[in-house]
Amino acid sequence: MKYFTVSAHKGDYTVFFDTGFTFFNSIKQKKGIWIVDRAVSRLYEELFDDIDPNDIIFVDVSEELKTLEGATMLYRQLEKKKMKRHTPLISVGGGITQDITGFVAATWYRGVPWFYVPTTLLAQADSCIGSKTSLNFDSFKNLLGTFYSPQEVFISTKFLDSLDPKDVYSGFGEIIKLQLIKAQEHGDFQTVTDKLNMGKQADGLLQLIYDSLLVKKEYIEEDEFDFGKRKLLNYGHCFGHALESVSAFTIPHGLAVVIGVLFANIIALKRKKISQEFFETLITEVLLPHIHMDVLEMQESFYGADALFQKMKKDKKRSGDGMALVLPKKDFKLELVQDISMEELQYGCRELEKVLL
Amino acid sequence: MKYFTVSAHKGDYTVFFDTGFTFFNSIKQKKGIWIVDRAVSRLYEELFDDIDPNDIIFVDVSEELKTLEGATMLYRQLEKKKMKRHTPLISVGGGITQDITGFVAATWYRGVPWFYVPTTLLAQADSCIGSKTSLNFDSFKNLLGTFYSPQEVFISTKFLDSLDPKDVYSGFGEIIKLQLIKAQEHGDFQTVTDKLNMGKQADGLLQLIYDSLLVKKEYIEEDEFDFGKRKLLNYGHCFGHALESVSAFTIPHGLAVVIGVLFANIIALKRKKISQEFFETLITEVLLPHIHMDVLEMQESFYGADALFQKMKKDKKRSGDGMALVLPKKDFKLELVQDISMEELQYGCRELEKVLL
Repeated sequence: MKYFTVSAHKGDYTVFFDTGFTFFNSIKQKKGIWIVDRAVSRLYEELFDDIDPNDIIFVDVSEELKTLEGATMLYRQLEKKKMKRHTPLISVGGGITQDITGFVAATWYRGVPWFYVPTTLLAQADSCIGSKTSLNFDSFKNLLGTFYSPQEVFISTKFLDSLDPKDVYSGFGEIIKLQLIKAQEHGDFQTVTDKLNMGKQADGLLQLIYDSLLVKKEYIEEDEFDFGKRKLLNYGHCFGHALESVSAFTIPHGLAVVIGVLFANIIALKRKKISQEFFETLITEVLLPHIHMDVLEMQESFYGADALFQKMKKDKKRSGDGMALVLPKKDFKLELVQDISMEELQYGCRELEKVLL
Repeated sequence: MKYFTVSAHKGDYTVFFDTGFTFFNSIKQKKGIWIVDRAVSRLYEELFDDIDPNDIIFVDVSEELKTLEGATMLYRQLEKKKMKRHTPLISVGGGITQDITGFVAATWYRGVPWFYVPTTLLAQADSCIGSKTSLNFDSFKNLLGTFYSPQEVFISTKFLDSLDPKDVYSGFGEIIKLQLIKAQEHGDFQTVTDKLNMGKQADGLLQLIYDSLLVKKEYIEEDEFDFGKRKLLNYGHCFGHALESVSAFTIPHGLAVVIGVLFANIIALKRKKISQEFFETLITEVLLPHIHMDVLEMQESFYGADALFQKMKKDKKRSGDGMALVLPKKDFKLELVQDISMEELQYGCRELEKVLL
């Protein structure tokens, strides 16, 4: 089985890659308490058949699950199970299941070991590494959390067979972002599009996930706590988060990120950081083919600059008076700027509408 | 100003020692949000006079504060203050204020810097170092938490002038435990009693606090996450925690710890790990002079072995079938055992009553 190891402050952890489910046997040896997305358990019943029902907690996944109330519900269930200090948690599901399990593992008994089996493309190709655990608080997404990495991550593309196209596109959004970040080194569009095409073949997807996580690995190992280099992984996220939020999360995360990358490039073009030619190649060859408007219920109102401005002002990355944005400059190189003005945001929203609607 | 530095996974931090309040000026330069025990703010009004009221949160301290509900109340207040990611928290108060501030600092924006000014002897001589943050959950004390150290700790014995005698005795409880742990190296009672007597002189207390924290520092630096050596710091705690809990927290923590040390020695004597002579010198010269029964509302019922058994079974340190206890063996040396039986607990409770009531 293919694998690599990620360094983290709590200890290194290994990510395993497979196209099947044989690794489930080794996870069952860990004698942990399972926290499993109920929808996944229904689609893959045979994986959970022989686990003692007393050792599984099935969760109904929604943004409400990753809150202090959701954590409290899980703490109570763990309490009833008289879980001991060294009993690990085993998480099976997408990013929300990962976030809530990670937070509970980080805080229960001041930290218990945990293992993670991501079941969506978004979680497999991006969120499963990086140590972040997150809870929403009031209207703020991911306002609370910790850095607390799992002991091991097990990725199987077999889970992706049952994925909704919308969630496949969403996963590709983060993959595109990671491949564009990688392009800072090799500097050409061809490599980016070749990689993305490889992932569209059934037997190329596992390799694309592996390659995309390798890009992220370099950034999180150098800056686990998100004070410097890691911020560049937020390419597309500053605007993307605001857009998701204004759309009441009807726009899936990865798609919001691709639209955010487009927005960042609109601003970069306006600031003359990138050429018109670069901009056009990027949107026609990389971005637009992956912005599947048909699965989105896009509305003009999502681009209302006022509402977006309110959200972007609350961005955690922001430290100055302007809004924060990861911007491309030259030859795919990226930088974090802190001085995006309201006027630029309004301009960017108008241009976005022209490209997308 | 005297100081030392503690190594921790999140970065080293410095502990400063003083008999006055001049360090408050440097804390005020940090432009943080203050979380201050309201009772402390009333006793030392002049310290907080020139801080913008918008930058202070006063808290009413009780065990209910260090819960998810208490954390939610603080998160909401921080949200209103539009606190940014790099704004530090500054905590002033005893262990409860430390625990809740530490937890909030660890989880807000996945971790913001924090500074701590302990105002009780218990917090100054013991809890202020070690990275632990804690919340109570349902009926379980410190069930939730993280390891998240402050950036700096400022200790001033001037705060102790206003302390209730009960809280002074409680602080001495942890100091005794730390000095008995230190005795594993030097191996004699005289050094322990000399240190404790030094602390009873006004000008010797700061030095005793310093010396006691130095003992703890060695253990937490070697085993920050509490998997091995650090467990010995729980000398007196396995039984002490259960006793505190059964007394509905009318017995202050440090006093429960001294009684717990006594209990551990009763069991060690019964198991012939220590001599009758060692046992008698320990209780007459070190323990009994510091168990101030007059400030306690001790009741025979606290020693009911059944209720204590229920609590000790829930001890986080426990990993086997028996109950966990840090036991002395020979020449002050300590070890963690996992096989304390119900019969031994009953025997220990009967002997405790004989010594104390």
